[in-house]
Amino acid sequence: MSDQPHPRFGADGLVTAVVQDATTSEVLMVAHMNREAWEATLRTHRATFFSRSRQRLWEKGETSGNAMHVRAARIDCDGDAVLLQVDADGPACHTGERTCFFTDVADVIDGAIVDTKVD
Amino acid sequence: MSDQPHPRFGADGLVTAVVQDATTSEVLMVAHMNREAWEATLRTHRATFFSRSRQRLWEKGETSGNAMHVRAARIDCDGDAVLLQVDADGPACHTGERTCFFTDVADVIDGAIVDTKVD
Repeated sequence: MSDQPHPRFGADGLVTAVVQDATTSEVLMVAHMNREAWEATLRTHRATFFSRSRQRLWEKGETSGNAMHVRAARIDCDGDAVLLQVDADGPACHTGERTCFFTDVADVIDGAIVDTKVD
Repeated sequence: MSDQPHPRFGADGLVTAVVQDATTSEVLMVAHMNREAWEATLRTHRATFFSRSRQRLWEKGETSGNAMHVRAARIDCDGDAVLLQVDADGPACHTGERTCFFTDVADVIDGAIVDTKVD
């Protein structure tokens, strides 16, 4: 038995994982973890997720080489989300962007008028 | 039709929403949004989510008074997660903590040895 806090995996066996750059605090990506991914992440200090589309574990960077070295991990108040603070070897996004969150919703910025008809 | 980018809501009608302090970049909480919550957030500039447990919209702070004023919104590369950068009127967490991610998984920090037997 470990006395470490651990996530509360959902009915689908998953928790949401938010990844943040440990130095700049930029939010890099969101993915999912099952228990095996969580344990692998703690054991190896490399961010490891569960791919829902491929239904298997994937260590970030296993193909791209852009691994994420985990400096700290936190769990939220109800245990269904975790936060990893990482040093990344390269871009988080498969598009080559530093963060997956590269798409601005510009109208929100500076309080510009928003067209709410999004469809 | 708006030319704004918008999220790709899942089969359950939801996307994951990560909330970050616009000033400190601290990650404050993770919640979910349906289309109505997303549109309300853009329209009002107040973070509004969909409660899965209560199956209804909730504007953050509607009971606590700790609203979150949205300064920027971003969408991730595959559209199933959004990032809100906010100025919060008070603690994000219902426990009174500033962030919901107040639980450290201490063994990861500084590369200490990890006990992987979490059960």
